[in-house]
Amino acid sequence: MADPRFFKNCGPFSLRDLAEIAAIELGDDADGDRVMHDVAPLDSASAETVSFLDNPRYLEQFKESAAGACVVVAKYAKFAPRGMVLLTSDRPYRAYALIAQAFYGDQAAVDERHASAQIDGSARLGSGVSVGAGVVIGRGAEIGDRVQIGANTVIGPFVVIGADCAVGPNATLSHCLVGARALIHPGVRIGQRGFGFDMSSDGHLDVPQLGRVIIGDDVEIGANSTVDRGAGPDTIIGDGCKIDNLVQIGHNVQLGRGCVIVAQVGLSGSAKLGDLVVIGGQAGVAGHIKIGAGVQLAARSGLMRDAPAGSRMAGNPAIPAKEFFRQFALLAKLAKGGDGK
Amino acid sequence: MADPRFFKNCGPFSLRDLAEIAAIELGDDADGDRVMHDVAPLDSASAETVSFLDNPRYLEQFKESAAGACVVVAKYAKFAPRGMVLLTSDRPYRAYALIAQAFYGDQAAVDERHASAQIDGSARLGSGVSVGAGVVIGRGAEIGDRVQIGANTVIGPFVVIGADCAVGPNATLSHCLVGARALIHPGVRIGQRGFGFDMSSDGHLDVPQLGRVIIGDDVEIGANSTVDRGAGPDTIIGDGCKIDNLVQIGHNVQLGRGCVIVAQVGLSGSAKLGDLVVIGGQAGVAGHIKIGAGVQLAARSGLMRDAPAGSRMAGNPAIPAKEFFRQFALLAKLAKGGDGK
Amino acid sequence: MADPRFFKNCGPFSLRDLAEIAAIELGDDADGDRVMHDVAPLDSASAETVSFLDNPRYLEQFKESAAGACVVVAKYAKFAPRGMVLLTSDRPYRAYALIAQAFYGDQAAVDERHASAQIDGSARLGSGVSVGAGVVIGRGAEIGDRVQIGANTVIGPFVVIGADCAVGPNATLSHCLVGARALIHPGVRIGQRGFGFDMSSDGHLDVPQLGRVIIGDDVEIGANSTVDRGAGPDTIIGDGCKIDNLVQIGHNVQLGRGCVIVAQVGLSGSAKLGDLVVIGGQAGVAGHIKIGAGVQLAARSGLMRDAPAGSRMAGNPAIPAKEFFRQFALLAKLAKGGDGK
Repeated sequence: MADPRFFKNCGPFSLRDLAEIAAIELGDDADGDRVMHDVAPLDSASAETVSFLDNPRYLEQFKESAAGACVVVAKYAKFAPRGMVLLTSDRPYRAYALIAQAFYGDQAAVDERHASAQIDGSARLGSGVSVGAGVVIGRGAEIGDRVQIGANTVIGPFVVIGADCAVGPNATLSHCLVGARALIHPGVRIGQRGFGFDMSSDGHLDVPQLGRVIIGDDVEIGANSTVDRGAGPDTIIGDGCKIDNLVQIGHNVQLGRGCVIVAQVGLSGSAKLGDLVVIGGQAGVAGHIKIGAGVQLAARSGLMRDAPAGSRMAGNPAIPAKEFFRQFALLAKLAKGGDGK
Repeated sequence: MADPRFFKNCGPFSLRDLAEIAAIELGDDADGDRVMHDVAPLDSASAETVSFLDNPRYLEQFKESAAGACVVVAKYAKFAPRGMVLLTSDRPYRAYALIAQAFYGDQAAVDERHASAQIDGSARLGSGVSVGAGVVIGRGAEIGDRVQIGANTVIGPFVVIGADCAVGPNATLSHCLVGARALIHPGVRIGQRGFGFDMSSDGHLDVPQLGRVIIGDDVEIGANSTVDRGAGPDTIIGDGCKIDNLVQIGHNVQLGRGCVIVAQVGLSGSAKLGDLVVIGGQAGVAGHIKIGAGVQLAARSGLMRDAPAGSRMAGNPAIPAKEFFRQFALLAKLAKGGDGK
Repeated sequence: MADPRFFKNCGPFSLRDLAEIAAIELGDDADGDRVMHDVAPLDSASAETVSFLDNPRYLEQFKESAAGACVVVAKYAKFAPRGMVLLTSDRPYRAYALIAQAFYGDQAAVDERHASAQIDGSARLGSGVSVGAGVVIGRGAEIGDRVQIGANTVIGPFVVIGADCAVGPNATLSHCLVGARALIHPGVRIGQRGFGFDMSSDGHLDVPQLGRVIIGDDVEIGANSTVDRGAGPDTIIGDGCKIDNLVQIGHNVQLGRGCVIVAQVGLSGSAKLGDLVVIGGQAGVAGHIKIGAGVQLAARSGLMRDAPAGSRMAGNPAIPAKEFFRQFALLAKLAKGGDGK
């Protein structure tokens, strides 16, 4: 059960309500009036809580779970313990997300502007904006309605932040325009100058970085990630992109819509990603690379060339994933004394 | 010699005292009354300072060192320069640590609550707590005795911090319970929501992250590292874990006791590490992986499967380290025209 | 065109003036009195803006560009569109940097000490120093003339910062001496204790970290990078080094002059780099390694052994780059059924 010190539970809900929330058909034999008080993982659930099975690694936990109800795909229904109400869904993780959002979605945002915040007189703040202690908002900044800004975050001059964004504490934003509903985590750095200079043995010479960072709607950027502003063009992050912690995004990078960038990835300057590209943790992309829509780059890979739409790449330098795993197997075989054929 | 602007020297100490502090037997021919004024590296030590030899790479420096005394294993004693007093130990680095702690361990902690700190009236602070300028402490937080909190750090509502912890400046803690004597470095982010969402081409959907971060006693977390809170279960860091800078720890990760996680490592969500696991720098661990006690994962490796207790793994994807280095050698041989056998 | 909200344009300039600024000979047929109002990338330039071609990837954009003038090497002159004035240079990126600095170099630094900054009475600040809101400057610190310190940054006791440095917001500096004209980006952590302890199954024991961080002149350190102080020796960053975002620099590391360290690189403790070493993104260097002057380590490589001056290394563990790429090609050939010879 979620710790009530940290999370406000908006339940309980009847199974009928939960099914409707999750767009699930409740089985005929289920008691729609039965009431659920919380969500919980399979191994700590009780008769009054809803759980979910998404990853088959946890099938054994499912079989033993005390959860009163569980979201699950139909094919695992037969493994359910007696008495568990099944909420069957083709997309159990999404259904669970909707249910959990119902229980915990409305975490009270406090509408306050802390007295210690330093808000420039020329900045424009919408209604319902929450500004934490020690926040600094520069001249000419525009902060949309219901935006929440965590303590000690610094918003530079003329930065624009769209409605319903949440910016965590201790973050820094400059030279950027952010869309609506963005979730910027603690310690994120957006808009600092990119790594642009003329290299020379008699002294590297800085190239002014004159672009901005343009962030779409519904973007998430993880803790301590860094997004440099463009060198001349802008750095662009498309609508709905999900970016994890400690990710580096260089100057002029462009991300399409809905890209997923896992922790500690590095995207070098001027890389261009199409829509729905997925990049696994700790992977890297070289500068000026073009990555087509829907490409999947395996964790810890290094992409040095353009990748066509829909391709799956792995290795360092990255090659098509099938080839990478074929080479990996061959080398193992050779080292064990086989001929690899 | 340590710069007296930055470090307060509590010496001098006699060799007799230092030997006792380090649990070392002083040789019969050593003058126990001789006084040492400081510790110093081999190449900058003087007759009044104690040095140490741990890594044999520095044997040449040892031979030439002007150190008045030196902690060293017995087998290197014969290489000592004339006049150097030898403090022989099977564990010279530990013995040196104890001696250096005697000289520099008691760095005066200032008991103050800076007037500019914003401490919620409902937060409970123990005795001797030091709170830097611009610190924010949320409602209901509990801060143990003698905790030091660096300037501009933000402690969220209901966070619990055990006695004798030191939290550096510009850090962010939320949704977490921290044990005693933890050392949290500048810029660390603990407790932000994990990277949990249902992926979909028509819009990724956030899954509420309802767990906490539970940190044991005597844990160290390096600068700008990130520890996400659990999704439902908690993220757990066991007693005595040492975590370096820029490390990413995903939601639901569990670390056993005394794990050592070197800089820039990434532990994906729900990975479970046993006691005393050592992970080299820039390595990665895939989600839901189980790592047995005492496993050693080489730097820059990528672990994709469970690893049994005591195993040594290397490569990407990681395989037993011996196999990895055999394959590495084979490939070099083949490329040079040999048949690799 | 650079967004005037974020960047102050100091133009216009005549072509004659720009040629002089960039040390370029203007062609006889060029109209030196023609006036340029801005710089811009090739694909968004207009008749009144100056652009540049450096990377041949953008040759097609060059052919189609509407730029009024363009810095370019002589060999591409024949591809220029009609009417474009050519500013030919052997070093077009450097020439462009000089021109762009003329347009945008003098971004007004505000000489102010924000009332909310906490500056210890014993700290010494030079003339023209700018101190942002919420900044904390410890006792005995020395801040040179015209230094700019961003909001909520924390400068520890006795830190020394040379003239004309710019430190971004939300950074932390302790136990360090910084030269002139350094550019320290947001969220950088300098001077925290390094990862030094005696490892033991019955409890790791901290080794006091008694060195400092010494930073030369003209150094740049990217956002959220971390530089640990020395263990006994100092951590040293030579003049003119360029360090990108999210880089980890361990205790006792020494960088020579003009090194370039790309994002997310990790340099383990006591590594020593000569002058002008270039390390590609996400690469790692093992502890105690010596790297000669001018070495180039490829992105995502892991250097485990000393590298002689001038060598080019790649792979993990890193080997001479030529060998790495030969092995890479051989493995691909073998996996496709060839014999690799």
